Formats: sequence, C-alpha cells, structure tokens
Amino acid sequence: MNSDGVRLTEEQRLDWLRLIRSDNVGPRTFRDLVNYYGGARAALAALPALARRGGASGPARICSQADAEIELKAARARGVEFVGLGEPDYPQRLQMIDDAPPLLAVRGTLAILAQPLVAIVGSRNASAAGVKFAERLARELGDAGFGIVSGLARGIDAAAHRASVATGTIAVLAGGHDRIYPAEHTDLLEKIIADGAAVSEMPLAWEPRARDFPRRNRLISGLSLGVVIVEAARRSGSLITARLAGEQGREVFAVPGSPLDPRAEGTNGLLKQGATLVTETADVIAVLEPILGRGIDLPAQKLEQAPSPDSLGPTDTEPAEDERSRIISLLGPTPVAIDDLVRMSRTSPAIVRTVLLELEIAGRLERHGGALVSLI
Amino acid sequence: MNSDGVRLTEEQRLDWLRLIRSDNVGPRTFRDLVNYYGGARAALAALPALARRGGASGPARICSQADAEIELKAARARGVEFVGLGEPDYPQRLQMIDDAPPLLAVRGTLAILAQPLVAIVGSRNASAAGVKFAERLARELGDAGFGIVSGLARGIDAAAHRASVATGTIAVLAGGHDRIYPAEHTDLLEKIIADGAAVSEMPLAWEPRARDFPRRNRLISGLSLGVVIVEAARRSGSLITARLAGEQGREVFAVPGSPLDPRAEGTNGLLKQGATLVTETADVIAVLEPILGRGIDLPAQKLEQAPSPDSLGPTDTEPAEDERSRIISLLGPTPVAIDDLVRMSRTSPAIVRTVLLELEIAGRLERHGGALVSLI
Repeated sequence: MNSDGVRLTEEQRLDWLRLIRSDNVGPRTFRDLVNYYGGARAALAALPALARRGGASGPARICSQADAEIELKAARARGVEFVGLGEPDYPQRLQMIDDAPPLLAVRGTLAILAQPLVAIVGSRNASAAGVKFAERLARELGDAGFGIVSGLARGIDAAAHRASVATGTIAVLAGGHDRIYPAEHTDLLEKIIADGAAVSEMPLAWEPRARDFPRRNRLISGLSLGVVIVEAARRSGSLITARLAGEQGREVFAVPGSPLDPRAEGTNGLLKQGATLVTETADVIAVLEPILGRGIDLPAQKLEQAPSPDSLGPTDTEPAEDERSRIISLLGPTPVAIDDLVRMSRTSPAIVRTVLLELEIAGRLERHGGALVSLI
Repeated sequence: MNSDGVRLTEEQRLDWLRLIRSDNVGPRTFRDLVNYYGGARAALAALPALARRGGASGPARICSQADAEIELKAARARGVEFVGLGEPDYPQRLQMIDDAPPLLAVRGTLAILAQPLVAIVGSRNASAAGVKFAERLARELGDAGFGIVSGLARGIDAAAHRASVATGTIAVLAGGHDRIYPAEHTDLLEKIIADGAAVSEMPLAWEPRARDFPRRNRLISGLSLGVVIVEAARRSGSLITARLAGEQGREVFAVPGSPLDPRAEGTNGLLKQGATLVTETADVIAVLEPILGRGIDLPAQKLEQAPSPDSLGPTDTEPAEDERSRIISLLGPTPVAIDDLVRMSRTSPAIVRTVLLELEIAGRLERHGGALVSLI
C-alpha cells in the first residue's frame, strides 16, 4: 500500500477511464499525456488536435463520458473497483513498471494487493508431480505470508491458486471480469476472491484473445517480487512471464526437471540462463526475504495536478512544422532510438516527445523496448 | 600421453611396487620419500630407520622383493601393466593430483588413457530415464572423441560404459583386477577392455571394502576433464566424486531432475552449488572444448634421479632430538597446519617435513586436506 498516494476524485476517475479506453492510448501514452497536460481531462481535450497533427488517417475514437459512466456503473454492480495508479490501494511494485495500467479493475479483497506477492506459473498440461509441487510451494509460501499471484489457467496456475485460497491469492485475467477464461474456473475464481482478488486492466466484457495473454503476463510479474516457473515447455507463455520478470528486475525462479521431460525444457533453459533453482520453498524465501527488508523507494506519482504557472505549457513546446517534418523524415519501419532522433533532428527532447505523442495518438507510431520507436 | 616422460627400468618398477605396497606408504608419502631420497630403492632402505625415529610401536611391514616379483608376474599373466607416474603412458591429468597413484595397474588398451576423458557417474538404483540419458550422453561424448570414465557400478555407471564400449571407456576399480565388483559386470568388463581399459591402484586380489570406493572416486575425477553426475540421492558416492572433482579443479556437471524425485536430490543440490546444468551433450562439450584447447602445463616428474652432490642429503636435514620432540609436542589429535608447525617450532620446513615423514612411516600421523596433520 502506498500511504503517500492521493485518491482520485470521482470525476478524475471517469476522465482516466475515458482516456485509457480511447483509441491509441496505452499505459505508456496515458502517462505521457497526463504528465504533459497536467491531467486526464486536459489530455482528452487535446486528443483530436494531437491526432490531426500526427496525421491520423481517420478520426480516432475517444471514449465518451456516457460510455465511461456505463462501464464504471456495471463494474461496481459486479463488485469491481477501479484503483488508479498512485492511489493508496494501487500495488506498489506494479507501479514501478513503466507500462503499469493507469486503472486496475479489482474484484475481491483489496488488502491482498498490499501483501508481499510471489507468482507461481507453469504449464497448462502439467504433470501430476508438477501440480503437487506447485501446491506445496503455494501452500508453504502462503503460510510464510506471501500472496500467490497466477493466471487462472489449467494445470500449474490452478494448482497454485487452489492451494493458497485460504492464505490469499490473486488471479490476473487476460480478459474482462465478465469473461472468465477458462470458463471451468469460474467456481475457483469465486473461492479466490473471498480472501484474495481477481484483477484485470480490460473492459468487463473483453473476450481474451491470444495476444492479450503476454500483455497480461507483465502484470503477473509486475505485481510480484519474483516469479516461480514450475513446469514449462519450450516457447510457452510461462517463459514470456519469466522474460518480463527479468526485464522488470524481478527475481526469476525455476523448478528443475528431467532433460527427457518436455515439460522441463523451459525451466531447465531458464536455469541455464541464471534463474534460481528451486527444489523447496526455502529456496524462494531465502532470495525474497532480503528484498522485502529493503522496502521500495517509489517516486511519488502525482499524475493529476494543476499545471504550474512557470512550467512550459503544451503550446510552448508545440513543434514548428519544419521540426515535425524533420523528425518524421527520420522515422521509418526500422526502430530507432529516441535519443538518436533528438540528436539527428537538432531539436529538443521535449519537441521530439511531443511529435512522437502526436504520431502515437494518430495510430502511426509503434514503441519497442528500450526507448526505440518506428512508424507503422 | 606425456611424451617427456622417462620409462622406469624393470628394477625401478619393482622398487616402486615394493615401496607403495609397504605399510604406511600412501601415494603422497611415496612422492615425498622418493623426492627426498632420490629414488625408491634408497627410500626402501631408509624405511626402518624412519619408522624407528618416528616412534613406531612395532615393526612396519616392508614389501619384500619376492612378493613384488610375484605380484608383477601375476599381473602380467592377467594382461595387467603397471604404469609409473611420470612415464609416457601415465594419464597426464591424473598426474596433476597430489595423491596420484605411483603405479597404475592397467588392463586393456593403454592408448585410451591418452584420450581426453570425461566421467559419467550416478545412482546404482537409477531410473529408466536416468539410464537412457546416461547412454545418450556417453554415446554422443564418445562420438565427439571423449573417452568415458566410470566406476562399473550398477545403474548409471554400467549404462555409461555400455554405450561407449565401441568408442572407448575406462572402468576404475575400487578393488584389484581379480576382484571385479559387482561380479555380474565381469562380462561387461571384458567388452570394455577390448578398446578401453580397466584401471586399479590396488593389488590384484584386493577385495574392495566400503572405504575403498571414495578413494577410488578420486581416480575417476582425476583422470577426467570433468565429471557428469546423472542421478544421485543425498549423501551418495557420486557426490563424493563431485566434491573430489571440484577439489581437483575439474569441471562438475549435473543433470537436473524433479524435486519430488529422490534420485535428483543430489544433482539438484550440486546445481545449487554451481555445477553446470546438463540437458544435452552440447552443454558438456561447450565447457570442455576450451579446456582441451588450452593443453596441460605439467611440471616434469623426475622422481628417480641420482642425488645431486650439492643438494642437501638426507643426513644433512636429519632433525636433532630436541627439534623432533619440539615438533611432536606441538602435535595432537586436532589437525594443525604444517606452516604453523614450522613457525611455532622455530625449525626449518625441511626439518618439519622430515619429522612428519618419520611419524607417517611409523603409522602415527594422519594427513588431512589443506596441509593439515594430526597425531593418530
């Protein structure tokens, strides 16, 4: 729990929901826009001009006040709370990742988000030994005071949730709260939310597609101090979670298995890359306990603020036409570093950032890891 | 093969055999004695005086010329060759360990000892998967030009030997060549020696006892560039081999397994301690190939030499009675460092070394790892 956090007003929460549900606005762009305009309302007002200046081919859809009100009402009727980035209930470690969802839709017990969390994930097609090990690990980590995060999938995920229903577990959904996947785990989810929670960044009725799972996986690792991969075949989703955990600076643990067992190929591979080998719960606790002791040094998140009168207002950094065209001419389908754009365009970082934001809102820009961008 | 090596004369070989078969003479003492006296014959002559000065409680048995001749003759009749430390056929890497056997009794093909060698060891009570993996590894490492070293035990060892009979494998025996253990592997051993070898440091008829196996294990690792542990329970013999390999500076490899499989407890433990994780043959080759490329920088072994006229002869460093008693008074049942003995006795390293040799020959000294000694 972030005791320094400030609660959003009801109006601000609605604005945030409108902004994140608008076309071409992802978590990173949301942050850029709100930082830039001093709040979501001003950002919403600026979207049409940004899209036009960015050369949008058609009108980008902006979520209406009415649609946001409907979503908020429906969510509350389902027992779903929207927790905003920087609010006291927002999970602290998730706040540290650069694509943290501005609004986390939480169903169940908010308090679980403030516990130290560890993720346990693995194959859907798990072995009996894998399921047994995941259960033991989840139960013992739960008893040691950790909340267990997983993805509600069949196999390892479900085993980890089941064994930690009593101590507290979090199911991170790839779709919305009204589209539980797999449907057969609807009953399990009801048990989970009694003392734990289900979280999602998607609209209530969002049907999860294949590409929503990797996106969801960054939340599993982002919520957690570390991720334990119990069984994983080559090129499986659990390995994506492990990679994201590494990128987010979280601990990666893997359970070894026989080289002749295809379900151990992924975990053995992680071990070769330096993941911590886990054969018992103490192996996980030994690594996480010192991290817990260290606490978190979070930069204060104050996304909503009155623009300071001395700060450069948006109009001050609006790029001149020749600056914009110079920057765009440097962009193409090959990702380039933003730093290089600044240097090569002989403009300022603020100008480059603004042009990129315009292009993004216009749906013409793709962001890659490591501050790289390309034109779509 | 050590092309710089010098062959022993038939006389010298007999003297060596007499010396190493005499009471209280192990491989380290053998080396000290021969270095000190310039040859085995002089050392044999000095044994009674050394034992007396060391305070032997009774007469220590010195192997007679006749007994050594009988052993040498019987060995040759069995097709067993004694290869001396420093001779061209003596395995180079084994020569690097400080308790290398002065004489290695080899039955089979001497040339296999000159190949790059890798050990594959593991549980007697192996799983089907473990046996299959050991076979695959032995076959593929054999095809890649490595000779396979193992201990002829049931389970993993036998699987490794069987799969490398065609490419070359070495069985290291804990007993003598006439006491094959387990007896059921007598046929396997005959196949092994066709293109490979059986080696032993013990007399032909030596019945292996429990404590001979750890002693034997140092030869398995000592012959090899690295040791692969395929399956190992907690506190198993394979873990001793792994520890010795580490102490000898050899690579340690371990095959992972499920935490729920007791046969993987030892190997998973080794991985936690930093052993290289092996799921395929390439993992082993990737580590060993660069070592092979480096070659070996062996100090020339010239154990048998005419004593140089300017060197201090044995009599010159014979300790005075007060020196001897000062050193002995510093010794007790608790191991102490030889360096500390030199410092605290205010004598020279040569004097301390001589007194320790006397005590050893008298059967009163125990040597521990790391240059520590205690009185028995």
